[in-house]
Amino acid sequence: MYLVEVVPNFSTGDPVKAKLIADCFRNRKNVALLNCTADADHNRCVVTAAGAPQEIRSALIDSARVAAEEIDLNAHRGVHPRIGALDVLPVVPLEETPESVADELVRQVGQDLFDKLGLPVYFYEKSASAPFRRNLADVRRGGFEGLAKKTSEPLWRFDIGEKPHPTAGAVAVGVRKILVAFNMFLKEGTPLNVAVRVAERVRFSGGGLKCVKALGLFLERENRAQVSMNLTDFTCTRVHTVAELVKVELKPFGAEAERGELIGLAPYAAIYDAAEYMLMCQGAGAEQCRTLSVEDVLDAAGRELFLELERGQILDFALSDAFGREIKI
Amino acid sequence: MYLVEVVPNFSTGDPVKAKLIADCFRNRKNVALLNCTADADHNRCVVTAAGAPQEIRSALIDSARVAAEEIDLNAHRGVHPRIGALDVLPVVPLEETPESVADELVRQVGQDLFDKLGLPVYFYEKSASAPFRRNLADVRRGGFEGLAKKTSEPLWRFDIGEKPHPTAGAVAVGVRKILVAFNMFLKEGTPLNVAVRVAERVRFSGGGLKCVKALGLFLERENRAQVSMNLTDFTCTRVHTVAELVKVELKPFGAEAERGELIGLAPYAAIYDAAEYMLMCQGAGAEQCRTLSVEDVLDAAGRELFLELERGQILDFALSDAFGREIKI
Repeated sequence: MYLVEVVPNFSTGDPVKAKLIADCFRNRKNVALLNCTADADHNRCVVTAAGAPQEIRSALIDSARVAAEEIDLNAHRGVHPRIGALDVLPVVPLEETPESVADELVRQVGQDLFDKLGLPVYFYEKSASAPFRRNLADVRRGGFEGLAKKTSEPLWRFDIGEKPHPTAGAVAVGVRKILVAFNMFLKEGTPLNVAVRVAERVRFSGGGLKCVKALGLFLERENRAQVSMNLTDFTCTRVHTVAELVKVELKPFGAEAERGELIGLAPYAAIYDAAEYMLMCQGAGAEQCRTLSVEDVLDAAGRELFLELERGQILDFALSDAFGREIKI
Repeated sequence: MYLVEVVPNFSTGDPVKAKLIADCFRNRKNVALLNCTADADHNRCVVTAAGAPQEIRSALIDSARVAAEEIDLNAHRGVHPRIGALDVLPVVPLEETPESVADELVRQVGQDLFDKLGLPVYFYEKSASAPFRRNLADVRRGGFEGLAKKTSEPLWRFDIGEKPHPTAGAVAVGVRKILVAFNMFLKEGTPLNVAVRVAERVRFSGGGLKCVKALGLFLERENRAQVSMNLTDFTCTRVHTVAELVKVELKPFGAEAERGELIGLAPYAAIYDAAEYMLMCQGAGAEQCRTLSVEDVLDAAGRELFLELERGQILDFALSDAFGREIKI
């Protein structure tokens, strides 16, 4: 059985709506809901699910229908950039699943979104129709409010559809690698501009690390500034390196990180690397690290990344539990 | 008067030969020799000079002639990669000098090298004839020893000339931005493989920082491993960020940096940024930093970068002194 991970992001932080959306991925054959995180400040709900392509396809369309019915972007507030009620829909091939299978699913879901729900689609990342449309930040630039103008420009016409949906905007759909979404909250009282400056310096576009995107945000409910980051290839640029560089860039502002946050699931390899880094910094040998229990790895990586890690947040374990066999990322 | 900086690199660490080479840039109208560093371990001599394009052109050809006469790469040893006696010849437009003027000089010097000395030429960086020939590391891959085979491949034919010069190899010539060459020596006893691993992690290609190239080397005479780095755009990726990341990546190996080293000159802006970072980390405000004397800036940046900085190593000052007017980078 081919296996794909999907990580649809919806523009709501409302727990009731988030539950309606997550329910679309429950009680289906060959589909497992692995995680659902809803956040009121970002006003965003991120679902992580995995399964066989065609069953995942039905679940995705059902969830997009709920989102289109429940979310009106004209009344939407939130610090996270977005163009749609179902804002972005990444598809990741797992195990031996060929990229072409994931891409076929992307094309099918894109067509479904338009045919069944009237939602126009941009294909992005590996599914993009042109190199300048690969980067999600570029696809999403201008947000829901700027969508009508953007898509009237010849270079930014939708891949499917012509006009934005009046209340649900548009959807970016594409095949990509596993992404690690890692945020760092700064201590209370740290002004937003520090988070913005640090994000600029840590991210690739500002001269920082390869495969890192970052934004500085202020989360009202937390009353804290946040450096919000996406690592687009954790095998290339490692999570703990990013965390360490954030600390370096915070220092001249007299600022400090208070707590890390993983959105969705993280691969065990990334967590292991963070644990190894932390323990080796404390004097452990590389061989000692290889004999650690999973619990010790989660504990050490959690200390390195300023957060508490549970088995359920590790993609490999969540998949293995859901499908009853060992699945390695 | 148009003004260009040139930073020709020659494959010799012999101080006598280095002096002969450097002398080619002395006592010429509209040409200033700003720096000459010869290092026996790298077996390399780096000249920094600036001046009017046509006078610089004559000096460059004279120095290439000396190098071709004095250096036989068949007998060459040294840890630094190289393809020629005059190995690489970067041209940097300064002040209001258009890039096209620097590129014209590159074409002229390239033709001179072949016509007058029989040296074949690759154009690289901004002067490259194809995108895959931009990166110096790719142009130089295989070294002098692999040059005959490399240039027999259709994709890697020389831009000028057909066969490598039997003793002096070939020359890479091109327009590029100002480059900061910054090395970090590791404490005695640190094994080479630590420098290699850290270099891999810090450099862009390994998932590290944008605009950073890095190699791990062992310098016999110093009896120390070194992380040798080139920053190809210091306005994008800052020198002190690189230094801090090297420290981060050294930590799990229980290793430490002992001393920094600038090869050639560095722009004041880069040094100021490093000083500001260091002082702000110690509690100074950004405004306080703006009122520092030049001496204070050199001192603070030197502490941040583990080295002693003098006015003469600052490109802006060296140029201003040489040409008798204020020149800012």
